[in-house]
Amino acid sequence: MAQDKKLVESITSREVDFAQWYTDVVKKAELTGYTSVKGCMVFKPAGYAIWENIRAELDRRFKETGVENVYLPMFIPEGLLEKEKDHVEGFAPEVAWVTHGGLNELQERMCVRPTSETLFCDLYNKDIQSYRDLPKLYNQWCSVVRWEKTTRPFLRSREFLWQEGHTAHATAEEAQERTEQMLNLYADFLEDFLAIPVVRGRKTDKEKFAGAEATYTVEALMHDGKALQSGTSHNFGDGFAKAFDIQFTDKDNKLKYVHQTSWGMTTRLIGAVIMVHGDDSGLVLPPKVAPTQCVVIPIRQKADGVMDKAAEIRDMLKAAGIRTKIDDTDRSPGYKFAEQEMRGFPMRVEIGPKDIERGECVLVRRDTREKVQVKIEDVAEESAKLLETIQKDMFERALAFRKEHTYEAFTYDEFKKTADEKPGFIKAYWCGDVACEEQIKADTTCTSRCMPLSDEAEAPEDATCICCGKKARKLVYWGKAY
Amino acid sequence: MAQDKKLVESITSREVDFAQWYTDVVKKAELTGYTSVKGCMVFKPAGYAIWENIRAELDRRFKETGVENVYLPMFIPEGLLEKEKDHVEGFAPEVAWVTHGGLNELQERMCVRPTSETLFCDLYNKDIQSYRDLPKLYNQWCSVVRWEKTTRPFLRSREFLWQEGHTAHATAEEAQERTEQMLNLYADFLEDFLAIPVVRGRKTDKEKFAGAEATYTVEALMHDGKALQSGTSHNFGDGFAKAFDIQFTDKDNKLKYVHQTSWGMTTRLIGAVIMVHGDDSGLVLPPKVAPTQCVVIPIRQKADGVMDKAAEIRDMLKAAGIRTKIDDTDRSPGYKFAEQEMRGFPMRVEIGPKDIERGECVLVRRDTREKVQVKIEDVAEESAKLLETIQKDMFERALAFRKEHTYEAFTYDEFKKTADEKPGFIKAYWCGDVACEEQIKADTTCTSRCMPLSDEAEAPEDATCICCGKKARKLVYWGKAY
Repeated sequence: MAQDKKLVESITSREVDFAQWYTDVVKKAELTGYTSVKGCMVFKPAGYAIWENIRAELDRRFKETGVENVYLPMFIPEGLLEKEKDHVEGFAPEVAWVTHGGLNELQERMCVRPTSETLFCDLYNKDIQSYRDLPKLYNQWCSVVRWEKTTRPFLRSREFLWQEGHTAHATAEEAQERTEQMLNLYADFLEDFLAIPVVRGRKTDKEKFAGAEATYTVEALMHDGKALQSGTSHNFGDGFAKAFDIQFTDKDNKLKYVHQTSWGMTTRLIGAVIMVHGDDSGLVLPPKVAPTQCVVIPIRQKADGVMDKAAEIRDMLKAAGIRTKIDDTDRSPGYKFAEQEMRGFPMRVEIGPKDIERGECVLVRRDTREKVQVKIEDVAEESAKLLETIQKDMFERALAFRKEHTYEAFTYDEFKKTADEKPGFIKAYWCGDVACEEQIKADTTCTSRCMPLSDEAEAPEDATCICCGKKARKLVYWGKAY
Repeated sequence: MAQDKKLVESITSREVDFAQWYTDVVKKAELTGYTSVKGCMVFKPAGYAIWENIRAELDRRFKETGVENVYLPMFIPEGLLEKEKDHVEGFAPEVAWVTHGGLNELQERMCVRPTSETLFCDLYNKDIQSYRDLPKLYNQWCSVVRWEKTTRPFLRSREFLWQEGHTAHATAEEAQERTEQMLNLYADFLEDFLAIPVVRGRKTDKEKFAGAEATYTVEALMHDGKALQSGTSHNFGDGFAKAFDIQFTDKDNKLKYVHQTSWGMTTRLIGAVIMVHGDDSGLVLPPKVAPTQCVVIPIRQKADGVMDKAAEIRDMLKAAGIRTKIDDTDRSPGYKFAEQEMRGFPMRVEIGPKDIERGECVLVRRDTREKVQVKIEDVAEESAKLLETIQKDMFERALAFRKEHTYEAFTYDEFKKTADEKPGFIKAYWCGDVACEEQIKADTTCTSRCMPLSDEAEAPEDATCICCGKKARKLVYWGKAY
């Protein structure tokens, strides 16, 4: 039992120090590791397997909408990066530069891609001639580099993994449609697969992507009340097409510029899963994304028939498509329970001599720790049902949490008091002026997370800006953000 | 028909200019594209989808042997790269160096990984303390960079995609076992999945990996008679462990160095598939790796019921698990046939009004162009059988080709004459001296591909070196190589 205690006691409680709790969980659940490469992280098997599941599911959803995968070079020559003015200004200060290849200095230095708009444009410039070549619906899975000063596992590191979709269309309408389609795909993925409720919205000009006409975002609320931008979808209009001269001959025989979009999700999502669902015993993984969904833990495993029965249960669960492991190490059941909780496996099955006598076993949920006794012959069916319930309940709890932590403010004093005292989203009207955004940030450290894409988004006639008091144009979700 | 002709006539014949044929196929089958990044390639959807299938199948086979995936940084600080002497000498001349992050010069420059032994060692140094931490069976899928001077799509480019497995073991025996296990896994994969027969062997000291104790290889023969190293598996012994101080406390309570292996396969494999199976009409993909296995081509598609029947057939094939597309574009059937051949889809189904009257359709193999009439109700079953036959026949044909192009030489004159006149492998005895390898290379451009791991590998008592005439130690496969 000393052993069990040690495993758990080294986790800081969320209420005491959320940042330390996060670091503890990431380390104790063995999601990441360290090397001598400053600012970069190692994805260990438990962490990378979560990414593999995210990638497989997103990839499946992308392909259903006609998207094809490609792979482009990781290097961008400086001249290419500079072709779109806003874009280079946004990224140049934070890229890594390659200056030497082998023993020679390069004639033109190249950065390691921070994102690949310029490379896709370079390709589209060569590959698009006619309306028959459109649309192009390309995506790539890769790593990108941004030279961050302060880093945190999954949330901010100099290299991270992501997907970046890049599409080219014949019309502005099609590009806008694709931008929204991918935003909705992201929102559905977060809610269905990661059990994370999101606010879908549009970024203000201040917060939009370098070079975009409009940036859309899905924003999620973490357990500490901070927001996490969890996916973005950009409409570029024909800005990049003009900078890179991407023209096509349309059906009417006229030469036109294409309209483009891009959209991305990153390994930040793993941070979101940890911070939305985790608790003081460790990680809590939604069943759909969990690499291991169930662990079978034998009680008194040296007793006659226990290990056989445990293996039999594991096989029944695996046959039902449940990702199952058995813990047959020589450690105590208590240690194994604590470890299952730390690693966030959604459920466990306990099976001991007494259970076997009764022809039963015990299912224990990770999220609520609720126990239920079931007949061994029903274990697969009951576990499948339980996993569905856990997935649903985790979403509902996260949604309730977000609702409880979403506030409204109608005066600036009210806004500042809420920002100071109540972690969460604050909904408040805004005039549309960047000066007010900057003032709010200076006063409260809150940034505009998004202008929600719901009916409430347009400000009513009499609404006034929370900051300057002038006529309001938009409802905005504000928050402190990762 | 002018259109059809144009599609195919722009492919150079293999016998006229194999290198140009290769370039033509890669381009016309739209496997790769170009950007302004010198020496790097773009994987277009048709090319990347082949890699996705290779990756999925290899990954499945790795995981069956207990391997777990991880992801490590793409950068290696110079000091870390320098820790193992042979290794840095092998790689330093061909790496890309990052010298600036954002606006600042780095204190220590870093290279973009050419391979990740040093990073895995750095991680293992931190993560391995006890025999309980062993074995470590890690793999990563990523891209690596080697600053090549001359490049060719898939075969040699400055950035390429690969997997690199890195394992650490308690004993030398276990490490040797894993080295051979992965070599055999690679050989089986090439033969079963890519229909490419291989020679399994060990590299001579001259050809082994920088830092390895022993390098094993699978060598394949391309249609032009040149060899392609298609996968390697290295046993490092405890060399890296000593350089990086990776020690563990064993069961006997003694501190010991781990024994390590690494093994890798790359996007070169796509080049191998093209060069082993392709013909003068384009790509020929083995069914197991083909992203599209079958294309349904309607004949007189505007005729009543043709498109419906074509769609019905497509659905029957898809339901049977056959990756099927329908070509319903407005181009001629002849053009569609030529395109199917160019892109290497293993089979097509032709369906027209006359076929429908008879309740039949026509299956056409890509590899032999053989046609067979089948009942529409049997189309799924017959196609599945046909794809199996194609896979098997493609392997058998490649094996027969390799046998026909594998020669023996017992005198140096014979060796030089064969090297000059007959493209292929040459089997000849060797004394074990690097001077003879260098002489042979200077005289013939042939290199030692491997010392085969078969019974014939040990030289008989009276065998003499093909070059110097002294007592021979090993049988060697020699060849000109990519």
